[in-house]
Amino acid sequence: MKVVVIGGGAGGLSTASNIRKYDENAEITVITRDEHIAYSPCAIPYVLCGEVDCFENIIMHEPADYLERNINVITRAEVVEVKEAENTIKYHLQEGQNVVQNELEYDYLVIATGGSPFIPPMEGCYLDGVFKIRTIKDGQQIMGWAEKSKKAIVVGAGLIGLEIAFGLKNMGLVVTVTEMLPQIVPRSLDPDMAKIVQNYIEKLGINVILGKPIEKIKGETVVEGAVFGDEELEADMVILATGVRPEIAMAKMAGCDIGRWAIEVNEKMQTSVPNIYAVGDCVEVFDAITGHNTQSPLGSTAVRQSKIAAKNIVGMKAEFKPVLNSMVSKIGNLEFGAVGLTTTLALQNGIKVVSGKKNALTKARYYPGAKRIDVKMVCDMNGKIIGCQIIAEERVAERVDTMSLAIAQELTCAELSNMEFSYAPPVSMVIDPIILAAEDACEKLKRLQKRKENNKDSINTNSNNLSS
Amino acid sequence: MKVVVIGGGAGGLSTASNIRKYDENAEITVITRDEHIAYSPCAIPYVLCGEVDCFENIIMHEPADYLERNINVITRAEVVEVKEAENTIKYHLQEGQNVVQNELEYDYLVIATGGSPFIPPMEGCYLDGVFKIRTIKDGQQIMGWAEKSKKAIVVGAGLIGLEIAFGLKNMGLVVTVTEMLPQIVPRSLDPDMAKIVQNYIEKLGINVILGKPIEKIKGETVVEGAVFGDEELEADMVILATGVRPEIAMAKMAGCDIGRWAIEVNEKMQTSVPNIYAVGDCVEVFDAITGHNTQSPLGSTAVRQSKIAAKNIVGMKAEFKPVLNSMVSKIGNLEFGAVGLTTTLALQNGIKVVSGKKNALTKARYYPGAKRIDVKMVCDMNGKIIGCQIIAEERVAERVDTMSLAIAQELTCAELSNMEFSYAPPVSMVIDPIILAAEDACEKLKRLQKRKENNKDSINTNSNNLSS
Repeated sequence: MKVVVIGGGAGGLSTASNIRKYDENAEITVITRDEHIAYSPCAIPYVLCGEVDCFENIIMHEPADYLERNINVITRAEVVEVKEAENTIKYHLQEGQNVVQNELEYDYLVIATGGSPFIPPMEGCYLDGVFKIRTIKDGQQIMGWAEKSKKAIVVGAGLIGLEIAFGLKNMGLVVTVTEMLPQIVPRSLDPDMAKIVQNYIEKLGINVILGKPIEKIKGETVVEGAVFGDEELEADMVILATGVRPEIAMAKMAGCDIGRWAIEVNEKMQTSVPNIYAVGDCVEVFDAITGHNTQSPLGSTAVRQSKIAAKNIVGMKAEFKPVLNSMVSKIGNLEFGAVGLTTTLALQNGIKVVSGKKNALTKARYYPGAKRIDVKMVCDMNGKIIGCQIIAEERVAERVDTMSLAIAQELTCAELSNMEFSYAPPVSMVIDPIILAAEDACEKLKRLQKRKENNKDSINTNSNNLSS
Repeated sequence: MKVVVIGGGAGGLSTASNIRKYDENAEITVITRDEHIAYSPCAIPYVLCGEVDCFENIIMHEPADYLERNINVITRAEVVEVKEAENTIKYHLQEGQNVVQNELEYDYLVIATGGSPFIPPMEGCYLDGVFKIRTIKDGQQIMGWAEKSKKAIVVGAGLIGLEIAFGLKNMGLVVTVTEMLPQIVPRSLDPDMAKIVQNYIEKLGINVILGKPIEKIKGETVVEGAVFGDEELEADMVILATGVRPEIAMAKMAGCDIGRWAIEVNEKMQTSVPNIYAVGDCVEVFDAITGHNTQSPLGSTAVRQSKIAAKNIVGMKAEFKPVLNSMVSKIGNLEFGAVGLTTTLALQNGIKVVSGKKNALTKARYYPGAKRIDVKMVCDMNGKIIGCQIIAEERVAERVDTMSLAIAQELTCAELSNMEFSYAPPVSMVIDPIILAAEDACEKLKRLQKRKENNKDSINTNSNNLSS
């Protein structure tokens, strides 16, 4: 069996590794236009901020490591054609000064082309000193430019924007993050929870401008500043963290169906072309709660999908489940994470919600070093938990995972509030903050129900009055 | 409604507080023989080791705090009689030099008498310098004696024994922990996992002697040492951390049925006497996995039970679920936790198991400060997860909670291995160690199944041969 994988990121390489795990005879080739493979793009901001020493450290494997496992990796190769009818791809390879064209046959093709940064169409976005952020090379260029800069603007206050802003701040720059929506992290946090993160990063000295889209970047050949509505900011560099668009060119060439944004796949991660699979940021997935198509551009999602794709390719059974888009990030000492829908997203999807909210501590009250923890739990009107957001200076990620499981199991806040949690004074409170938030949701639901019943009663009384 | 609660620990006071929350008119009295109330006995070792400054800090409330919420607390009072037929209790109260006898009426009585340390019957156990460990007073006495001591023996290598040993070691003593079983933490950890904790505490300089029960404590009036089989150790102090026995005297006096070890209660936390409830270390509960009676002498269990008891007393509906005995502890920097059954306990209960095991990291591989994490997942032969043990220098407690939910939801290792986990390089690996352990369990199960099928085939072939 010959398998060709296009893409050397988490999705592509994990698929290759998993196929090798299940089938020692498969001929596996991974092809990528990137110079580096098997690095963690999520870690780029942490190199900037100095927590990870250098970019080399975040490269986890070299092509030679894969060759040891009999996986052939071709880097700096541009796929120029997918001949679906002939089960071959054509690619261009730089060999010294020449470009050589080669061909590869496949029984199965895996498209793991990822996404590319979305560059908003506007004046100045190709000036020197304007950067996108996706590859390790982008990271290196940003770092190099930042070393000779004083002021930076980061456009977009999603996770990557904030992480990059923190990185540049730690490098000593004056940093402003701008966001066209009226809050930071709009995809994962509600405004009240986003405000906690905003307060934290502002305390770190990062400026935040909300509700103003970028209009243009100013400068002759080199960036000098940017304009946001009535505001104009000077800057030596601008980083566009304005989202990622799925790379679907290969899939289109191969004749795969494209969905609303990205490649359509079934639960086997198979495209509309039966021997072509796709994984990672270039595919669209189902949202477990709304049932609608969504994107899940997360390394962890890509890795989970790669296992499913690999199993199906080698003839084992496996299904990729709809996603909850569980995420976590860390900026300075602050961890924040979320899973499922925010109140905002729920309402946009026509789901009425009640939210339980509590702030508590990460250790017993008297324990030195206990940190404040904020939990917000979003429930539908039957009490079913459909989302959760958690912020604290420690112990957030695993709580998000607990909530991920609770949501996947369709627990109600009442059920969760009876759950058994572990306890020891140095690591937790005797009643977990998650339980407290679940109890708060239960109480709010009860109050709403009572109000409804009272309204009914008063309507009944009124109608009785009318009929009497 | 008049409620009397006997016991000023977590179970008793939480029941009182919860009743007040649901019913603002109830007359609530808490009665305890202890001088202090509302302190965290779990925190005593952390005062010894110096992480918590002083014993005063672990007292969370004074009787006056409860009085503010109209809960009357009577301390240093010895209940001498429960007249179940008349719904009254009699108690003795020290007033200056005199002992006064008083009576209290109740509509509901809550027995939250906790447990008392088990003192093994042997020579020398009442010498000066021999301590049990249960109350804040015990902690203070141990600390006072330790300040003038050089060598200590801690008998019993359960959680409390180890925590106390670490506390005394941190105070500068030479400390030996002894355990009659051949491993430490026998209730919660399998031998292989216990060994990891043992190696850690030995590296801290604590001596460990296994497989030898204490035979006698030596000394004239003051302890001089102890004898363990062929071994004799010198010591200035001996701490008996040899387990806790439920305090059931009150319940017996009240005519409540007693089970195998402790007070029998139904899912409402109601005893066999309808208007008497019981919570905490003095009751026995159901084990969620074996279905048998068990003890769950944990602060977190007492607090969960108190909510259930309070709700039922005020006429709301609530049921206490069978327990998984989820626990966590921290010694030095090492956190270790467990939930459900160990392999050993499963086999003792006649459950055949397979265990998945993995060691991995708490952060991305390249992230500075990533710690080793060990996960062992115990599954029955259908793959259903029935236990999990986790050890690392960070992020253990919340993972135990995730596993607690997985076990309560009766997930199989295959189901869990497809679960969605959050990921960011500074806080997790792209594939969570829990997933890796679940995958390992799946693979072991598959191999076992294959072997079985092969055996069947060979039996079939043999019988075919015979019949042909």
